[in-house]
Amino acid sequence: MIRIGICGYGNLGRGVEIAVQKAEDMALIGVFTRRNPSTVQTLGTKVYPIEEVLKFKDQIDVMILCGGSATDLPNQTPEFVKNFNVVDSFDTHAHIYMHYAHVDEMAKKSEKLGIISTGWDPGMFSLNRLYMEAILPNGTDYTFWGKGVSQGHSDAIRRIKGVKDARQYTIPKEEALARVRSGENPVLSTREKHLRDCYVVLEADADAQYVEDQIKTMPNYFDEYDTYVHFISQAELDRNHKGIPHGGFVIRTGNTQNGVHHKIEYSLKLDSNPEFTGSVMTAYARACYRLSQEGRTGAMTVFDVAPKYLSTKSLEELLKHSL
Amino acid sequence: MIRIGICGYGNLGRGVEIAVQKAEDMALIGVFTRRNPSTVQTLGTKVYPIEEVLKFKDQIDVMILCGGSATDLPNQTPEFVKNFNVVDSFDTHAHIYMHYAHVDEMAKKSEKLGIISTGWDPGMFSLNRLYMEAILPNGTDYTFWGKGVSQGHSDAIRRIKGVKDARQYTIPKEEALARVRSGENPVLSTREKHLRDCYVVLEADADAQYVEDQIKTMPNYFDEYDTYVHFISQAELDRNHKGIPHGGFVIRTGNTQNGVHHKIEYSLKLDSNPEFTGSVMTAYARACYRLSQEGRTGAMTVFDVAPKYLSTKSLEELLKHSL
Repeated sequence: MIRIGICGYGNLGRGVEIAVQKAEDMALIGVFTRRNPSTVQTLGTKVYPIEEVLKFKDQIDVMILCGGSATDLPNQTPEFVKNFNVVDSFDTHAHIYMHYAHVDEMAKKSEKLGIISTGWDPGMFSLNRLYMEAILPNGTDYTFWGKGVSQGHSDAIRRIKGVKDARQYTIPKEEALARVRSGENPVLSTREKHLRDCYVVLEADADAQYVEDQIKTMPNYFDEYDTYVHFISQAELDRNHKGIPHGGFVIRTGNTQNGVHHKIEYSLKLDSNPEFTGSVMTAYARACYRLSQEGRTGAMTVFDVAPKYLSTKSLEELLKHSL
Repeated sequence: MIRIGICGYGNLGRGVEIAVQKAEDMALIGVFTRRNPSTVQTLGTKVYPIEEVLKFKDQIDVMILCGGSATDLPNQTPEFVKNFNVVDSFDTHAHIYMHYAHVDEMAKKSEKLGIISTGWDPGMFSLNRLYMEAILPNGTDYTFWGKGVSQGHSDAIRRIKGVKDARQYTIPKEEALARVRSGENPVLSTREKHLRDCYVVLEADADAQYVEDQIKTMPNYFDEYDTYVHFISQAELDRNHKGIPHGGFVIRTGNTQNGVHHKIEYSLKLDSNPEFTGSVMTAYARACYRLSQEGRTGAMTVFDVAPKYLSTKSLEELLKHSL
């Protein structure tokens, strides 16, 4: 059995717990939290204060880090890899290379292995971008996200004065998808690719017009998009918008010769972003354990991991039934 | 530059030639053929009789084998790997495991590397089946082929008395695709998944009804399918049915908990099956060269190859732009 620890227990930590509980080759050793352990309700896994984690150094094969990319993982991943093999889902694309370098340096010193930036984007979408480009070099790829909840954009709306609660959906524009799939290889502006759909609950005394204006003109988050704002009651938001669905599309079109066109498309439609991301991280925890057993150390990404390491099947089963 | 040889020059050999000519990191050394070299018209690559291939032992880094799976590759791949790193597209699913064992044994002795069964099915579709199952273990995957030309079924029709020429398209049934995508997890019969559409040119004195009956009742090939037969002129067949398009879908639906559903879908739409397959083989030839440089020997499949080996980009570029 591969002995797994979970560091951090928000939606993602719970998603990992669900996936590991169902993996026949894994055992869950504990959840480690900065909160008071007695306040953390897991689905059965024991909870320990994060300060005690080093006591588990020899009892955990892979620690799955479920903190956030903004402030947790930049420090946690290099720190934890001093004592544990780790898997994270660091997803700030612009800083991945630096994060990789930090984790690699620490992991080489400690002779541990850290697989970073797993999940679906970065993660499965990245894999598909790489494979697609390698097998169809003369072409262009497009990534669309949604329909799905953007936690960051929902948070940004909630910070506006007069907003009690909010949920923001990122939605790919059908027309853009159709143009990409047609192979016309369009240049698409930010506004042409996605729209933003916002469900907002106002405080009792709020100025709806002010809130709507603040949302639609918010730099970086909304100003470059067609943004729709719907004011709803807290009851309606709780009833219809409490899920965390997501998904999206990676599409590459190109040719092998003039006039000989090809299209490759990968898509995800997920009822729960954190549960799916947790499942991907769990598969990479399996790979992390096996590669570490083979003596691999340092940092890796999904690009470095041969597919077979993710599967519970034997090589013979894979060749006979999956290949 | 990675020095490439091509063994066999039918549609697939030409597809590989097109891909290698466009690869900036590759040089084409020669096409090797059993035919009289003067009768083989390449797109510029020199042609040599296959008997002379051993003279090129030290001039070719990877030999791409473009023969057929029925009679060529079972012998050629184990034979060539005695002297060359090789890539093939062996696609008889039921015999892949045995083929792997033969190639592995020979390649370990010669300290060469053989990557077998590349292409798209087996190949990219297999990869997706593996990744999908690993990240969504509680689910079911479905593979649909087409719309595309089945060479084997077209050949089978051409062997019927009275048939001058024929082209058979395998077409996934839209209703089956819709049921799979809905997540209902259906059990689908052969007849429910695909239909077979046949364009047939008759000899002058042929009996159309006889031909149609022979097609529709042909065991294994057609009897388990809804089969449509269209009689057309040679001119129409030449005008509208000379391409070799193909493609298909790998779809997995499943859940992480009861009621929390996810769908993963990968699809290809290819104007030219052999050109696309040739492009995939070319990417795996790059991987074969690099893995061989790292000292890897024996047989491998797409499951053993970490994605990064396929790409011409540096790790830094990949992490900064693709991850």
